[in-house]
Amino acid sequence: MNRSAGVTAPAGFRAAGLAAGIKPTGTPDMTLLVNDGPSTVAAGVFTRNKVKAAPVLWSQQVLTEQSLRAVVLNSGGANACTGPEGFQDTHATAERVAERLGIGAIEVAVCSTGLIGERLPMPKVLSGVDSLATMLDSGSEADLAAATAVMTTDSVPKQVAKTTSTWTIGGFAKGAGMCAPNMATMLAVVTTDAALSKADADAALRKAVDQTFNRFDVDGGTSTNDTVLLLCSGMHEADAGEFTAALTEVCADLVAQLQADAEGVTKHISITVRGAATEAEALATARTVADDNLCKTAFFASDPNWGRIAMAVGNAPTEFDQQRLDITLNGVTVCRAGGRGEDREKADLSGTDIVVEIDLHAGDAEGTILTTDLSHAYVEENSAYSS
Amino acid sequence: MNRSAGVTAPAGFRAAGLAAGIKPTGTPDMTLLVNDGPSTVAAGVFTRNKVKAAPVLWSQQVLTEQSLRAVVLNSGGANACTGPEGFQDTHATAERVAERLGIGAIEVAVCSTGLIGERLPMPKVLSGVDSLATMLDSGSEADLAAATAVMTTDSVPKQVAKTTSTWTIGGFAKGAGMCAPNMATMLAVVTTDAALSKADADAALRKAVDQTFNRFDVDGGTSTNDTVLLLCSGMHEADAGEFTAALTEVCADLVAQLQADAEGVTKHISITVRGAATEAEALATARTVADDNLCKTAFFASDPNWGRIAMAVGNAPTEFDQQRLDITLNGVTVCRAGGRGEDREKADLSGTDIVVEIDLHAGDAEGTILTTDLSHAYVEENSAYSS
Repeated sequence: MNRSAGVTAPAGFRAAGLAAGIKPTGTPDMTLLVNDGPSTVAAGVFTRNKVKAAPVLWSQQVLTEQSLRAVVLNSGGANACTGPEGFQDTHATAERVAERLGIGAIEVAVCSTGLIGERLPMPKVLSGVDSLATMLDSGSEADLAAATAVMTTDSVPKQVAKTTSTWTIGGFAKGAGMCAPNMATMLAVVTTDAALSKADADAALRKAVDQTFNRFDVDGGTSTNDTVLLLCSGMHEADAGEFTAALTEVCADLVAQLQADAEGVTKHISITVRGAATEAEALATARTVADDNLCKTAFFASDPNWGRIAMAVGNAPTEFDQQRLDITLNGVTVCRAGGRGEDREKADLSGTDIVVEIDLHAGDAEGTILTTDLSHAYVEENSAYSS
Repeated sequence: MNRSAGVTAPAGFRAAGLAAGIKPTGTPDMTLLVNDGPSTVAAGVFTRNKVKAAPVLWSQQVLTEQSLRAVVLNSGGANACTGPEGFQDTHATAERVAERLGIGAIEVAVCSTGLIGERLPMPKVLSGVDSLATMLDSGSEADLAAATAVMTTDSVPKQVAKTTSTWTIGGFAKGAGMCAPNMATMLAVVTTDAALSKADADAALRKAVDQTFNRFDVDGGTSTNDTVLLLCSGMHEADAGEFTAALTEVCADLVAQLQADAEGVTKHISITVRGAATEAEALATARTVADDNLCKTAFFASDPNWGRIAMAVGNAPTEFDQQRLDITLNGVTVCRAGGRGEDREKADLSGTDIVVEIDLHAGDAEGTILTTDLSHAYVEENSAYSS
């Protein structure tokens, strides 16, 4: 067994991934993760979209107990907008996992990702579960198989592991954000052998997600299937504060991997808004810039076109005095006091990283959103085929 | 003099357009329009962006009197984010117009469009005013010159005229929407020889704009310079209700011309939301779909990908039951009761026009937003050069 760098890095977890035949391409499409305990404490954060996929509705119900023994995931189909039949499919999948593992279905979360509006091929899904249950293992091979079988338009698997002196956190993620990437759906599963109470696990996950996944935005759309799960096997005592900090770091690492692999990405853009009245207003303003297609195409063009940023800021749901607005691009303050600052030509945006700093001078709060540019490749990926 | 089909079609108006040298390309860039009366009643609707260009701040001030003798417009520069100096430039332009026409500067509205954040070349602007004042005329040549000199990324001038038994409405527009098109700024000027009170003119314009310009959305961004002006020369008695209806038709005609000439457009898309609790929620839902890049790239691809539309609807700020959602594409109900309806292949989106109908079954209100697709040409136009 190689040293694990993913979801089975913490003690008490086994995983497997395989090609169950859901994807017509024959590439891997099902993952099973099991928590062998002693603890089964878990927490989950789900999409805020009002159209929720069947696996989200199921897993939300399951998580009211804040206890999980297993998670089964599939790519190749979102099982969203599939009605009561789709919900039954999710239920049947959880039941089959429970049967094979000798646990209760209420201890099994389900995640799906892929095209919206189509039923899953259930015979393939159920026999996939049967095979997965016999393949469970820990170590780097199991990690990689688990992280690979959830991929859709991802070009690389995304894994993370972080070890302290006593406990470890591991995880994987897929997709291009909380933000309706191509085949929709951002899924992430994080494991730990830290012993946490239900309340601490829940608080830690909510805080970490709020600081990381919720501040990454490719195209402003939240998918029907977005899910982040935390499973704790409870092997080692842990301080809740220290754990939350480590969990936030792990989630930020996964977000950086998502950003680097986002659809059509050519630029990694960080938008910080300072001097806002509240953090919520700072984030809303940064998000308005991140979602603006004229800003996104200017970033793609390495064009220090701060007028488009000023336009977007003026459309954000926040109050400020346009005569005090400052905009800094890669360290050059091109807009000062609402007007022209240093020569825009001095701001070199030709590299991969673009740092946008906006000061509203309307308060003391700040916030940062990570985003990507709008490139020809994005249009190509999202128009070349139905996804 | 040919029969006028634009801004001097109503009696009492003269116009001119020329190349003042603001644009480095040497193409036309200044327009002057004069109302010879007897009435000078006027109304204006301006951008809701919190970053407002100097000409918007000036014209809003002027319009508090609801009386206009003249409008001077330039392309080649937005005069936005130009500080107190930019406001002085606008003021000086209005003063020069007033001087040449023997009127007061407070009777002169100013509109600008082009790159944000740069001062205008004032010597060229002021000598442009001097020349324009000697060229004022009515008829189709003057109309065309006036409508041409405000163009930025527009590929064709956009004009309209409508005559009833007694009075006439004429107008021009430029840009690709209320919605931050490329070089920003949607400008429209509508003239009439109908005699209207200030209150009736204002109410008619607000109602018409709300039903037309405010329901067209290319990319969700409202520019710093958007302006729609109505000037009434007061030659002929008019019924306010009849006038409002005609004005709405004229504005809708201009919007159809804007949609057809929007940046990178390959599809003309109409998104109607029915069964909403309120008209505001219907429009907000339609706008969320119109602004969603995954929906826009699917439209570009002629792809009946209703799952992306369901995803966008679920992100709109409106309440509904996902189990009742219907989505119809060009007459084919591909999503029924939140799940799969007729085969998506039956919906033929290969033509230019795409009609999206969404029923939330949550009330009796409805609303329609017109939009365009997200194509390679859009990315090309907005990334190929600073604008």
